[in-house]
Amino acid sequence: MPKDAVEIRVVSPIVTKGFRKIADLKALEYPGIKVSHAEISTGPGSIESEFEAAVSVPGTVAEVLRAERDGADAVIIDCMGDPGLRAAREVATIPILGPCETGMHVAAMLGHRFSVLTVMRRLRPSFENTAAIAGLSTKLASVRSVDIPVLELESDLEHTKKMLIREGIRAVEEDGAEALIFGCTGLMGCASALREGLLAAGLDIPVVDPIPTAVSVAVALVRSNLSQSKYTYPLPPEKTLIGYDGIRLPVPIAAE
Amino acid sequence: MPKDAVEIRVVSPIVTKGFRKIADLKALEYPGIKVSHAEISTGPGSIESEFEAAVSVPGTVAEVLRAERDGADAVIIDCMGDPGLRAAREVATIPILGPCETGMHVAAMLGHRFSVLTVMRRLRPSFENTAAIAGLSTKLASVRSVDIPVLELESDLEHTKKMLIREGIRAVEEDGAEALIFGCTGLMGCASALREGLLAAGLDIPVVDPIPTAVSVAVALVRSNLSQSKYTYPLPPEKTLIGYDGIRLPVPIAAE
Amino acid sequence: MPKDAVEIRVVSPIVTKGFRKIADLKALEYPGIKVSHAEISTGPGSIESEFEAAVSVPGTVAEVLRAERDGADAVIIDCMGDPGLRAAREVATIPILGPCETGMHVAAMLGHRFSVLTVMRRLRPSFENTAAIAGLSTKLASVRSVDIPVLELESDLEHTKKMLIREGIRAVEEDGAEALIFGCTGLMGCASALREGLLAAGLDIPVVDPIPTAVSVAVALVRSNLSQSKYTYPLPPEKTLIGYDGIRLPVPIAAE
Amino acid sequence: MPKDAVEIRVVSPIVTKGFRKIADLKALEYPGIKVSHAEISTGPGSIESEFEAAVSVPGTVAEVLRAERDGADAVIIDCMGDPGLRAAREVATIPILGPCETGMHVAAMLGHRFSVLTVMRRLRPSFENTAAIAGLSTKLASVRSVDIPVLELESDLEHTKKMLIREGIRAVEEDGAEALIFGCTGLMGCASALREGLLAAGLDIPVVDPIPTAVSVAVALVRSNLSQSKYTYPLPPEKTLIGYDGIRLPVPIAAE
Amino acid sequence: MPKDAVEIRVVSPIVTKGFRKIADLKALEYPGIKVSHAEISTGPGSIESEFEAAVSVPGTVAEVLRAERDGADAVIIDCMGDPGLRAAREVATIPILGPCETGMHVAAMLGHRFSVLTVMRRLRPSFENTAAIAGLSTKLASVRSVDIPVLELESDLEHTKKMLIREGIRAVEEDGAEALIFGCTGLMGCASALREGLLAAGLDIPVVDPIPTAVSVAVALVRSNLSQSKYTYPLPPEKTLIGYDGIRLPVPIAAE
Amino acid sequence: MPKDAVEIRVVSPIVTKGFRKIADLKALEYPGIKVSHAEISTGPGSIESEFEAAVSVPGTVAEVLRAERDGADAVIIDCMGDPGLRAAREVATIPILGPCETGMHVAAMLGHRFSVLTVMRRLRPSFENTAAIAGLSTKLASVRSVDIPVLELESDLEHTKKMLIREGIRAVEEDGAEALIFGCTGLMGCASALREGLLAAGLDIPVVDPIPTAVSVAVALVRSNLSQSKYTYPLPPEKTLIGYDGIRLPVPIAAE
Repeated sequence: MPKDAVEIRVVSPIVTKGFRKIADLKALEYPGIKVSHAEISTGPGSIESEFEAAVSVPGTVAEVLRAERDGADAVIIDCMGDPGLRAAREVATIPILGPCETGMHVAAMLGHRFSVLTVMRRLRPSFENTAAIAGLSTKLASVRSVDIPVLELESDLEHTKKMLIREGIRAVEEDGAEALIFGCTGLMGCASALREGLLAAGLDIPVVDPIPTAVSVAVALVRSNLSQSKYTYPLPPEKTLIGYDGIRLPVPIAAE
Repeated sequence: MPKDAVEIRVVSPIVTKGFRKIADLKALEYPGIKVSHAEISTGPGSIESEFEAAVSVPGTVAEVLRAERDGADAVIIDCMGDPGLRAAREVATIPILGPCETGMHVAAMLGHRFSVLTVMRRLRPSFENTAAIAGLSTKLASVRSVDIPVLELESDLEHTKKMLIREGIRAVEEDGAEALIFGCTGLMGCASALREGLLAAGLDIPVVDPIPTAVSVAVALVRSNLSQSKYTYPLPPEKTLIGYDGIRLPVPIAAE
Repeated sequence: MPKDAVEIRVVSPIVTKGFRKIADLKALEYPGIKVSHAEISTGPGSIESEFEAAVSVPGTVAEVLRAERDGADAVIIDCMGDPGLRAAREVATIPILGPCETGMHVAAMLGHRFSVLTVMRRLRPSFENTAAIAGLSTKLASVRSVDIPVLELESDLEHTKKMLIREGIRAVEEDGAEALIFGCTGLMGCASALREGLLAAGLDIPVVDPIPTAVSVAVALVRSNLSQSKYTYPLPPEKTLIGYDGIRLPVPIAAE
Repeated sequence: MPKDAVEIRVVSPIVTKGFRKIADLKALEYPGIKVSHAEISTGPGSIESEFEAAVSVPGTVAEVLRAERDGADAVIIDCMGDPGLRAAREVATIPILGPCETGMHVAAMLGHRFSVLTVMRRLRPSFENTAAIAGLSTKLASVRSVDIPVLELESDLEHTKKMLIREGIRAVEEDGAEALIFGCTGLMGCASALREGLLAAGLDIPVVDPIPTAVSVAVALVRSNLSQSKYTYPLPPEKTLIGYDGIRLPVPIAAE
Repeated sequence: MPKDAVEIRVVSPIVTKGFRKIADLKALEYPGIKVSHAEISTGPGSIESEFEAAVSVPGTVAEVLRAERDGADAVIIDCMGDPGLRAAREVATIPILGPCETGMHVAAMLGHRFSVLTVMRRLRPSFENTAAIAGLSTKLASVRSVDIPVLELESDLEHTKKMLIREGIRAVEEDGAEALIFGCTGLMGCASALREGLLAAGLDIPVVDPIPTAVSVAVALVRSNLSQSKYTYPLPPEKTLIGYDGIRLPVPIAAE
Repeated sequence: MPKDAVEIRVVSPIVTKGFRKIADLKALEYPGIKVSHAEISTGPGSIESEFEAAVSVPGTVAEVLRAERDGADAVIIDCMGDPGLRAAREVATIPILGPCETGMHVAAMLGHRFSVLTVMRRLRPSFENTAAIAGLSTKLASVRSVDIPVLELESDLEHTKKMLIREGIRAVEEDGAEALIFGCTGLMGCASALREGLLAAGLDIPVVDPIPTAVSVAVALVRSNLSQSKYTYPLPPEKTLIGYDGIRLPVPIAAE
């Protein structure tokens, strides 16, 4: 029987303290639903490349393990690269969600095709690969970028929003998008500005803000008693691991 | 800002009164979340063919329109054929969910591939078509059936569960399924029996029970302020409609 | 052995009397081939949405049943939404053809890729879904629209033809189309004008006019002794059906 | 305006005289429809490999050119390898049909998925490649073979039919086929035996006999005034050609 | 154990003597690696159509047979249509490489998507078909052409290079290409000019020159002791073959 | 102009010293081609899960950076999970090859479809994801496992080879494989035993041994002057990175 009080842990896989504002996460709470937060202590300042995504994974996995030990009911990895999603699902039994995978499935339910609006052009192959693995290639209309680095998104928030609206309109009119999803969790909170900009252009298009959506879907999974398949994501076997003292795997089921 | 009190309306697109037990729906309620129910008055006794799905649509659309007028926040069409899903999305502004489309997206997030366990073999093409339209063909491992008609599922519930377990194990071992989803909403409530049967066979496989899952995802959409794209599902134009007195469309936006 | 005299019934799934001109159908007759016609009595005035397609189905199925009782050899559903195609195939033993599915397969044989030229932009997802189900997604170059409602296509026929030529040229030059197909059966008869317009632009591109093509293919199926698979489209089981007095299914084979 | 008297030329791309029986082709004639025949004079005795298909092409193209000069309205290449189909379409303006491509499109219309029943296992990649190019990979359930060489199919016709029924049943029950198509034009005439064998096994499955079907579809194209796209299949440019004295291309349009 | 001295035979499937400059092939030699050359004696002057590709095949197969008898270790068919690739693989045991198939696989390893830059627009369907058969459709961004016939590529080499740079930049910026491959082996030697032109435009994009790449990959296969699967490409059965005196197949294994 | 002396660095992304035998790599050398080796110092003992693959990446990237500083011409990551492939390609300018991606492309050239023979069943989703990203899903027939952990493969080498032959035959006969590839670089050296076992069963099927093949293809890339696209894999931007003292990125091009 599902618990009435659900804790969703958001793990930000970067070392830039305070990038994720706690108040923004608290705004996602409901009676019976708590949203907690963690950052990693080793890894990159932000994630705008495959390299940075890769070096964020060990710290992210460590935080996922801690979240499950703390009693969290689900974890969301706070980056649209979904770094460490598969590794984390192996070491945990609670549901682990990637905002990109989750947001793409939700966007695919809302409109015939969706586009991703992200920060840098270089991330396009990564999003197309995520869609391919999620089985959603045919629903991905395009990946567009505003060409603003993650840590500068808030430097001139009006410019960021203006660029989002411009690229969002292009995604609809040129690429065939009928729903939109942010391609960077640093854009959290910009959804209503984008949606209004689109409506002003006569385009009634839903905008998926990945972290709030992932939090809601995580609650849905917890209340439906669902978690990742342990046939797809079995616990790793016990073995030598050098250089990751912070990572202690649970005892494998097979060894019990 | 999303409402704290959310009403999800489940519309059963069949005329067999009492088939959907209200207590089963009430069990899905949480503080702040209410689950209401409606049946259609014209249409088939159950849905096991494309023909029956088709003749359930006018009544279903009428109930969807009524649900929105009643103030419901989202509607779930209570049949794995998702009958009338696209038509209903056009006439409504609140989110309309099909348990098949929704459940398939959720199953695709939980495991590498999923199989559908349904009632009759003849439904296989329909599920494969739904997956194709949802963009999920590569995630659908197989469609298997227990060969028990919808209205007889509960006649010998132990036999039904036994068949589900047998076909579920085959789906995993022969077809490559790593998650399962029921292919008939009449199987609601059998998920834990199936999951236990799989665990007993050493298979730790999630089982998606489509109606509870769709209710949870509907809440997620409502709380994320999301609904279907009106670019994909615009309101139908005003025009002559003979023989459907019960269906009164809202005034088209374009006509305002 | 196939009959020498073949009757193809064209069923227009709308209640607008006289929209389909009988003379246009008679022009498709050959020695040994008769083309008959029926309209539905309950349903929409025209079909430009998923909703209107859905509410045309019960009347369409009733007319398909009547056609088979009348001795027709095949039925064509006179709308590019192919409304009720799968339901009708279940209840009938004679071949039932959708002009969209049929025309797409023919277009795919004629050119490397084809585009659909339709009336309203909102129909694009529907055509892409039909192509996905037909297995032809990779052959569909694009869906373009002239933005003229069905019932106004003939109001200014020269404008309609001009728009068809403009969008047809764009489909070839911008989208990679190498064959074209009309995306509305209301455009019947415009094929030669479009083809000439394309030739004048130096583009030797075939134009599939769906109803004449479907009539010809229906004859081909009848003369080849072929009809839809009853494994894919078995007769629906006998059961309660409320509100569709006009629909009387044949006795199921299984019950004989 | 299409001609009332249509001539379909069947070109057998092999040098085994009399393999294709004229009476079998004459049985496909109808009032207004004539079926003529030609064989090639250089090439293989039968086609069971990519090599043999390739060396049949020059002779086949020569016969296609002759057929158009003779006034035929369409040509069917009498081999399921569709040898020379694209080359022939370039040099001709009348429709050129491959029985494999044509039969696969027809089979895809009749059932949810189809299987090919062919002579030798080694042909499987070739059929899968044809399906890929036709855009029909998702509709091809399997390729099965009876392991009887082309020229021995009639040595023990009862054995051939028995093997077809055995593999046909397997295709339906093991591979998910819901329609069948012969994978060798040498099997022409066996369709009714196979269909009866399937019915006896309780499987109501259509069987596409490719040559009769292609003849019917060729008539359909001619009467619909349709031929291959000259944008996809433009006339080859004039240039040196050594060793093919029998092949004289029409003057290219560009040279006029 | 692989030989230290490897001979790669390049077979130009055209009758234009001297089109392929021997010095260009010699430049691909390394210690232990020899590159030899042959032309065909019957066939087309150049290949710019499916027809010309088809009539080049018998001569090409004859040269492949000769190469194996001569002791060559691998053969490359010197045309981006890969004419006769499958037929040649059947008759030979040494690896037979098509520069198009090979180059596409290499390009797919280098960048997320690749575009083909070819001579004439009419070749686009052929490249898309090759990609479909190779399983690489999702990696092919586009096919673009410079609209210069093969035999005129060197008439104004500066113009050819300028056009390649123009279309290459468009492929990257408009079509999403992240790697490029020449779509005509007649462009051999232009890769560095194209790459420099792209770099000058700020685009650091690899350019695959198909013949040098295929020679290198052929050496890789020989040194890895790999050749085409005889399960996919079995030797053709012995049988009548009229009109191809120059082609003598090895005795089939099955006949030994 | 390519160098005559080429150094290929094989980086084993595990901390088990001596697992990769240097003699086996030296056997891949040719005149002008040197194969060097490195292991990582932090990471897992072997890789049999997504988690272990992830924690091998930082050490692997560090070794890739060292290889380029040392003057190596290309790097091969010695694990079929291709761990860190994309991250390494970003930080390096020399070609970085993954044996899985490389081997799959080579296998796809050799046979119509290929199967992967790996160690543990749990790796299947990972191989299917790699194929999806490489664009090769349609060429992957199946993933089969011998159920022997990596570090035990050599404990009973005859058992390992026997299991490889058994699963290899099944892959061909049940799954449609026409070429095979090892799904663990720990199987290096078993290719000839497997190939002989298949031949003894009458199956003439090529077996791709991924590390030797990747070394050969790496040489091919180097000699063709090709490396990964810097448009797909641009250098990561300079930024804070905590906890990875060993990783020093080259100065980004954009900063010069």
